[in-house]
Amino acid sequence: MQNFEFYGPTHLVFGKDTIKELSRLIPKDRKILITYGGGSIKSNGVYDQVKQALQGYNVFEFGGIEPNPKFETLAKAIEIVKKEDINFLLAVGGGSVLDGTKFIALASKYTGDDDVYDAIMKHGKLPNSAVELADVITLPATGSEMNCGGVISKISTSEKLAFHSPHVFPKFSIIDPSVTFTLPVRQTINGIVDTFVHTMEFNCTYDVNSPLQDIWAMGILRTLISEAPKVLANPQDYDARANLFWCATCGLNYWISCGVPQDWSTHMIGHELTAFYGIDHGQSLAIVEPRLLRNQKVAKSYKLAKIAREVFGIQESVDLKAADMAIDKIEEFYNSIGMKTKLADYGINPQEAAEKIRERFKERNVAFGEKCAITADVAYDIVKAC
Amino acid sequence: MQNFEFYGPTHLVFGKDTIKELSRLIPKDRKILITYGGGSIKSNGVYDQVKQALQGYNVFEFGGIEPNPKFETLAKAIEIVKKEDINFLLAVGGGSVLDGTKFIALASKYTGDDDVYDAIMKHGKLPNSAVELADVITLPATGSEMNCGGVISKISTSEKLAFHSPHVFPKFSIIDPSVTFTLPVRQTINGIVDTFVHTMEFNCTYDVNSPLQDIWAMGILRTLISEAPKVLANPQDYDARANLFWCATCGLNYWISCGVPQDWSTHMIGHELTAFYGIDHGQSLAIVEPRLLRNQKVAKSYKLAKIAREVFGIQESVDLKAADMAIDKIEEFYNSIGMKTKLADYGINPQEAAEKIRERFKERNVAFGEKCAITADVAYDIVKAC
Repeated sequence: MQNFEFYGPTHLVFGKDTIKELSRLIPKDRKILITYGGGSIKSNGVYDQVKQALQGYNVFEFGGIEPNPKFETLAKAIEIVKKEDINFLLAVGGGSVLDGTKFIALASKYTGDDDVYDAIMKHGKLPNSAVELADVITLPATGSEMNCGGVISKISTSEKLAFHSPHVFPKFSIIDPSVTFTLPVRQTINGIVDTFVHTMEFNCTYDVNSPLQDIWAMGILRTLISEAPKVLANPQDYDARANLFWCATCGLNYWISCGVPQDWSTHMIGHELTAFYGIDHGQSLAIVEPRLLRNQKVAKSYKLAKIAREVFGIQESVDLKAADMAIDKIEEFYNSIGMKTKLADYGINPQEAAEKIRERFKERNVAFGEKCAITADVAYDIVKAC
Repeated sequence: MQNFEFYGPTHLVFGKDTIKELSRLIPKDRKILITYGGGSIKSNGVYDQVKQALQGYNVFEFGGIEPNPKFETLAKAIEIVKKEDINFLLAVGGGSVLDGTKFIALASKYTGDDDVYDAIMKHGKLPNSAVELADVITLPATGSEMNCGGVISKISTSEKLAFHSPHVFPKFSIIDPSVTFTLPVRQTINGIVDTFVHTMEFNCTYDVNSPLQDIWAMGILRTLISEAPKVLANPQDYDARANLFWCATCGLNYWISCGVPQDWSTHMIGHELTAFYGIDHGQSLAIVEPRLLRNQKVAKSYKLAKIAREVFGIQESVDLKAADMAIDKIEEFYNSIGMKTKLADYGINPQEAAEKIRERFKERNVAFGEKCAITADVAYDIVKAC
């Protein structure tokens, strides 16, 4: 096991009918800005539950945070926070709304002279505090509800970049799995793939003698595979919805990552596909991951073979053969829940995409993965095979 | 899955050569009381590492906190905290030292008129704050390093009781598994059994459709079984020591307990055996658990059968038969690492012990377990079979 540090102070409130706990969790004197997305919370009843719980509070609202939240949109919320002296941000929605709200919380405290986007996203000049924030998370996918990171896009430069700050851990997160009963199938599937790939990014690297971490990561994969068909067959299966949400949260609350090396190169390439072509985050991951695993099969053979045996029950003693079979099974799983796994499925030319991504990675002079093996040229090979 | 809340703000620092991080983690202006036990930290080098890291701090010391920490001892430390205006407690040692230090931290803030022991341990009159505390934990066993509970004994009344307060979460916990290389075998074994039983208490109850929690709990059991023989064969096997320590921490940091019912009746009976006869905590659990599981076999058959199949690889399709086999395997595992599992092994008369415990549980009018099935009379039956 590798040395590690872990810190996760978010108070999680999970279960049926938990949105009403807002009034217990937020001090009465807070001036609250509720942030949300395109308005689905108004049709599924979440907005009404939140407003009901916050009766008597001083509440402002900011809607319209889009999937892959845009800096240009968030900048408007930052103005409101400053103008109205907001001291509590409540994100109500999915990971995009929460990621955007984390950025608002941090950027509202920025006092430097540089452009605030460049300072936080590119130059590492992060403020030493943030506006207090919490969330009612309505989409099982990003795990943003128990971590201190976010991913922000910028329209003007086609960029999609991540930031992290200990000041943006949600003070609390409320998860009521029943609010996901009415999720569009596409979002349910995206969330399942996102969770699957987070878990793979944390665990599918090389062996460091971490049996417990490996079992836990494979436990998430096994649970996704067992629960996904139940949810797709019966969207109102509370237990299956709850199990999927718990997988999503545990897929990125860093519990499974303690003491093990991490990858994240599928995400790095996927972010570029989203930035260039606008495809969903989950879709981009399902396209990239099988090709990336194939490309890195030798380096990842120990973990892939373990996944083959413990997740998919494959009886194959040769690691490299088992690894190949695991990759096939993963793509089959994605396809089985209705997720497409080829660039051509979205009308994207692999050659063109590969060239664009190679160029961008070269510009930034970056290499990704647990051993920095995913250089611009390797990324080109991977995307070309997508 | 059941509704649940989770909160765990402790900053964990895990790995080789991490004690030196104390100087980064404790603000320079703190007036520190180091608490420790019988002095093993002086022979194994931990004390020197701590003192080296704390050069330049204002440091007091309080040694002599015993296994099953006694209120009578802790009261002396509370006097020092008050007299010297100590504002940071650093526990250096095992779970007993840390549990005792949590009590010191809380009791030092008590201002009521009642006896402080009765107020905290019996009447639920807990202070609303505690002295800031952290630890260098040296024994993988109690998991106290990432939770907010403690267990305290009182000599004058032969009592052993638990308390919980969100104010006694360690601010940070440092775990360097290499400090366990020199642990006496008896303590290593006690810690393995303690961790095993914590995990069982959290998971071996009844089915609530919690596949991920079940896999995670069984992951701890599997890892204990795989790593214990390695540590006993080679006490300086760093990876095996690290894996055992990580199991111990995760056995009681409440990660595996999210959304599932809990038992804890083995602990309740075990505490009485320790209080009456002075046997080690781990020893008491190894004696009680197999008999308690057998007594509750029908109610626990779903989980016991799952453990039989997933932990011990038993191919038996009838749940009750598989449950019996799992209980046999658990006792075999304890015996295989050198842990005795009968009262007679310690010269204790089961009939006498059973009567004492029945009387005490009747006095207190308590019933334990996930469905309160362990009444005084059931506890009598269980202990008599030990």
